[in-house]
Amino acid sequence: MIDHNRLSRARALMEEKGIELLVLTHSTDLAYLTGITGHIWERLACLLLTKTQAFFVAPGFELGNLSADSAALLDCHGWKDGEDPFVLVQKLVGDAASAAVGRTVPSWVLLNLMKIMPHCQWQSADSILAEMRICKDQQEFELLRRVQEKACNGLGKLIAHGLCGLTEAEAFELLKTFCAHEGVTVTGGIVASGPNSALPHHHNSSRAIQKGDVVCIDFVGEEPGIGYQADTTRTFCVGSIPDGFEEVYHTVNRANQAAFEAAVPGTPCEEVDRAARRVIEEAGFGKYFTHRVGHGLGLDVHEPPYLSAGNRDPIRPGYVFSIEPGIYLPGKYGVRIEDQVFVTPQGPVRLTPTHGLMSHDLRICN
Amino acid sequence: MIDHNRLSRARALMEEKGIELLVLTHSTDLAYLTGITGHIWERLACLLLTKTQAFFVAPGFELGNLSADSAALLDCHGWKDGEDPFVLVQKLVGDAASAAVGRTVPSWVLLNLMKIMPHCQWQSADSILAEMRICKDQQEFELLRRVQEKACNGLGKLIAHGLCGLTEAEAFELLKTFCAHEGVTVTGGIVASGPNSALPHHHNSSRAIQKGDVVCIDFVGEEPGIGYQADTTRTFCVGSIPDGFEEVYHTVNRANQAAFEAAVPGTPCEEVDRAARRVIEEAGFGKYFTHRVGHGLGLDVHEPPYLSAGNRDPIRPGYVFSIEPGIYLPGKYGVRIEDQVFVTPQGPVRLTPTHGLMSHDLRICN
Repeated sequence: MIDHNRLSRARALMEEKGIELLVLTHSTDLAYLTGITGHIWERLACLLLTKTQAFFVAPGFELGNLSADSAALLDCHGWKDGEDPFVLVQKLVGDAASAAVGRTVPSWVLLNLMKIMPHCQWQSADSILAEMRICKDQQEFELLRRVQEKACNGLGKLIAHGLCGLTEAEAFELLKTFCAHEGVTVTGGIVASGPNSALPHHHNSSRAIQKGDVVCIDFVGEEPGIGYQADTTRTFCVGSIPDGFEEVYHTVNRANQAAFEAAVPGTPCEEVDRAARRVIEEAGFGKYFTHRVGHGLGLDVHEPPYLSAGNRDPIRPGYVFSIEPGIYLPGKYGVRIEDQVFVTPQGPVRLTPTHGLMSHDLRICN
Repeated sequence: MIDHNRLSRARALMEEKGIELLVLTHSTDLAYLTGITGHIWERLACLLLTKTQAFFVAPGFELGNLSADSAALLDCHGWKDGEDPFVLVQKLVGDAASAAVGRTVPSWVLLNLMKIMPHCQWQSADSILAEMRICKDQQEFELLRRVQEKACNGLGKLIAHGLCGLTEAEAFELLKTFCAHEGVTVTGGIVASGPNSALPHHHNSSRAIQKGDVVCIDFVGEEPGIGYQADTTRTFCVGSIPDGFEEVYHTVNRANQAAFEAAVPGTPCEEVDRAARRVIEEAGFGKYFTHRVGHGLGLDVHEPPYLSAGNRDPIRPGYVFSIEPGIYLPGKYGVRIEDQVFVTPQGPVRLTPTHGLMSHDLRICN
């Protein structure tokens, strides 16, 4: 998917901010602007965008792998092993007085650029790329909704299959298989059972899931070749409900709903966090909600906006972000319920299914 | 595996080079120095090493996942969502006048560091980390040898199974499964069949492998939790040998052997490339050998030393690198034969098995 307007919009933002040159290496930023996907190795490959030019400097062999659409956008310059690609960069854009670099551009590239362009003023390209990417268009909205649904279909199959007796690691492998069947490649996830569910960033272990466990499942994935991310968390009881758990679960669910209702255009981002936190604090669990309420989602699993204390930026239509409050009682259990939300001019809508096996009802599974 | 001497050796190199502060984010450099593995997200996590201190600044939840060994090395400082971690960094090391940053540290970290420490002189940490990592010790040698062997066992099983009738993508999936059985996770690879074998960086396709094809298989992998890399290429004929192929194959094999024999301590790195290239040029295929002859290998698949024109650094004992000459005849077929080599004071030894199904003999498989 290449949107030819994106290069023009990037140039308009560069002009507005007085930036003469934009430098991106392989990243979701580069994919967003040019459709080029790939991994950064030790050989330099970069987009050099100016007001009038769009150079792509890369190892010669990499140019052969560009799609025709991407190649048509760009003025490609290959280099060979044994040549210094920064000499080529200097020749092409060395006279720029101000430049922005993508946030993931590695220091070995940036320090070399600073060396060949010692009088250039460098800044982060977030003022261009994050600004462009933070509001999703209709096509992105559809892709994000589709991948949340497919991923949830995979999770639903795992729950229908049952968790009891599987190790956390096995349950995760099974989840991957069910999701693969739905067309989603799972790239990471947490299956945290029993007391492990109180660790929000638990590493899956060989602990066997047993009756009476709380199991918190948080996972991310994408449709191969598409790149838009799914990210979902649900918390289940296996066989029975532990003492005191219902109150904790329903508090998190009410916090999720409060944050959802707060997510309207114009509200400062931190107020969404605040809305969830207020519910949890009032229930007496404030100190057990140890992370922000959410993060943006798009081509990256975590991207702006961040819904946390201190972020006073107002929510805008087109934002997509997670709402994922949690309560973690050390040594006992934890609960997190995470949906992705899309903000329309009329207010928020959930991209994550909340019906059937994905509903927020407290569910006892096998 | 944590080698407690590594921090001391890093400090000695810092002192020698007049560097007061070393900054590393999640990377193989960080894993090498501290045993800490992980992925860099949008939250700052970094090692700040000075002459007397070893700080680790990270999100609070990440500190809970550190191994006891890693935690014991470090003075850990957690930060919470809503706080600015760079304020913490400034408080801890803000008075450093010179600093080195790991090569993969992203620009968003480096530009923020430059902002909070405007009078500090910044340089690449390669003068410390690449220098330390380029010579492998006995333990690393053993881990590298082991993973090459295990990966080759997986490839051997694929060849014994046969290639004919599989698509390139299927053959790669099957290779992953055989390697997983040997304890190696394959993280990337190329199965290039028929005319695709003439593309050294081909992307696996749905082309079905058929009788008369040349198939070039190049793949990388690691033992989970260990991190040392395997990287191997072999080229096979399926069912029969195409016209003119024997001469091409044996030329590449002789080039491989010539480079191997050149890889003795004291020889400039570029001479190893030269030795292989000379054989291929003399056979009249010079313009079809389009890449350098090799790259270093360790915790990264590609790391120093690079065996290419222009690199006059002398080879030292402890170097591990690939020797992988190739000839690529567009539209016809290609050949590449890649082994990993360890340099001892007495000369090179191959880490990659070259017996049985892994021998360099021209092999016809099913």
